[in-house]
Amino acid sequence: MVTLKDIVAAHDRIAPFIHRTPVLTNKSLNELSGAELYFKCENFQKAGSFKIRGATNTVELLNQNELDRGVATTSSGNHGAALSMAVSRRNGNTQVVMPHNTPKIKVRNVERNGGQVIWCEPDQTSRENVLKDLVSKTGSTVVHPYNDERIVMGQGTAGKELIEDFPDLDAIISPVSGGGLLSGTLISAQGLNPKIKVYGAEPIEADDTFLSLKKGEIVANKTIDTICDGLRAQIGTITFPIIQSYVQEIITLTEEEIVESMKMIWERMKIVVEPSCSITLSAVLKSRELFRGKKVGLIISGGNVDLEHLPW
Amino acid sequence: MVTLKDIVAAHDRIAPFIHRTPVLTNKSLNELSGAELYFKCENFQKAGSFKIRGATNTVELLNQNELDRGVATTSSGNHGAALSMAVSRRNGNTQVVMPHNTPKIKVRNVERNGGQVIWCEPDQTSRENVLKDLVSKTGSTVVHPYNDERIVMGQGTAGKELIEDFPDLDAIISPVSGGGLLSGTLISAQGLNPKIKVYGAEPIEADDTFLSLKKGEIVANKTIDTICDGLRAQIGTITFPIIQSYVQEIITLTEEEIVESMKMIWERMKIVVEPSCSITLSAVLKSRELFRGKKVGLIISGGNVDLEHLPW
Repeated sequence: MVTLKDIVAAHDRIAPFIHRTPVLTNKSLNELSGAELYFKCENFQKAGSFKIRGATNTVELLNQNELDRGVATTSSGNHGAALSMAVSRRNGNTQVVMPHNTPKIKVRNVERNGGQVIWCEPDQTSRENVLKDLVSKTGSTVVHPYNDERIVMGQGTAGKELIEDFPDLDAIISPVSGGGLLSGTLISAQGLNPKIKVYGAEPIEADDTFLSLKKGEIVANKTIDTICDGLRAQIGTITFPIIQSYVQEIITLTEEEIVESMKMIWERMKIVVEPSCSITLSAVLKSRELFRGKKVGLIISGGNVDLEHLPW
Repeated sequence: MVTLKDIVAAHDRIAPFIHRTPVLTNKSLNELSGAELYFKCENFQKAGSFKIRGATNTVELLNQNELDRGVATTSSGNHGAALSMAVSRRNGNTQVVMPHNTPKIKVRNVERNGGQVIWCEPDQTSRENVLKDLVSKTGSTVVHPYNDERIVMGQGTAGKELIEDFPDLDAIISPVSGGGLLSGTLISAQGLNPKIKVYGAEPIEADDTFLSLKKGEIVANKTIDTICDGLRAQIGTITFPIIQSYVQEIITLTEEEIVESMKMIWERMKIVVEPSCSITLSAVLKSRELFRGKKVGLIISGGNVDLEHLPW
């Protein structure tokens, strides 16, 4: 299993290539929630999301032969853009399998960072099949968006920075999709200050992690009909055991709750965030009693929103 | 005329009650413009705009008798909210005359800060008549949104902070409406580093300052049919002479240019800004040759945007 030591090494490896993102606070949202909220703003990260952390860590660890064969992945967008950026920096080529309903900004982000988009249908089976076909033809090196220890190590550096900046947090809430960010955050918190309780926030419309924890084994998403285009993936075999070991609870949210908190953050904090991370604020507001009077870190994972199609 | 010394005194007076806002940079907008851009982010300011600076300075200078009579103003919104906040802190009452087409968020901001909204028609004459009626009935103390030296002193503190943080700027661009922000910025730059060239950015659809400079005397706006709801006011008798003395040039922009730069800032910087200040980026992009290779400060004056009515 990934350890804090691995995350520290990953942080040293990627630090020259990423931003140390700021942590913002907001008086009016503190008053509204009754908690002290610390927003770790990965929407200001390179390529617009935390994904550059894991992607850079993994690409830096590829040998020249792996890189020369080309790099491929499936992605709802943010991982694809981040991977393209990390691979382009090493002068390699990236192919990104993306569902055709991906927001335009995420498609442009892949292309702007030198990646090539390969379209698939918006479901897990099509994603995997198109990728498999691609790899069998090209022999390229696959960098999975989350189910890879090198990715988990990289994503854990966001939580590490947050805890370094605010060591006495009572809780951290991370969105959960494939589980890379949540599992990395769990290992960082466990290693740096095990008193910090770490929660996952997940849409009810794609609540596989919630259901998997309940059942004690991985169960598939029944629907992925959520506005959170970054939270439609299926929890991974590498990330799930970490979550099972350490997570406090998965808080599940309705689409309405997610959109409402997204608008609140835009209006009051004047920052552009995806619904895939405003969900962490929804979790605080839904479980108000749990967080009242507590210092709570929220991982604002990304800001790549299609401005032409806002959900209000 | 207001001096740097006045602005320094105003800054000391208001510092406990305002944020020292961050200055952000963005690699992709630097590449696009060919300049080094420094965004002074007053969208993160208290009440969502720079207006709290002038309002706080003025309200702090009111005597108890002036405060007790109640405070009144006309405002497209940001000054009204800021004034309400500053007056509420001194336990006074504020009445704000606002055009009925003001974005909802600006109305809510006034009310949230303890102000009372009085409606008027969206033109200068109606604004002034409704205010005059109000004052003749209530005897309240009027705090004008810009044509007041105490306001100019306060607004000048934004430019002062920017120059303190980046003393070797080649240029600063400020939006211009009634002229409080631009004239304050001019005096700060003139006093701190007269080598800095200060420009105004103004919508073609409300270009009274551009025309007034050309004519050598104040001329009225012919239209105020601009998306920039913060830039519809008429240049003032106190602010105009300062602008006449020191401004480099007023750059005028089309509505299309303003909306395009607004979207660029949201998409690339992940911050919510008003069209009334994205106009400064439009000015850089329109006058590219003027700013190529230069260090340019842009005053991002506010972030109070009605998310239900975005211009794209």
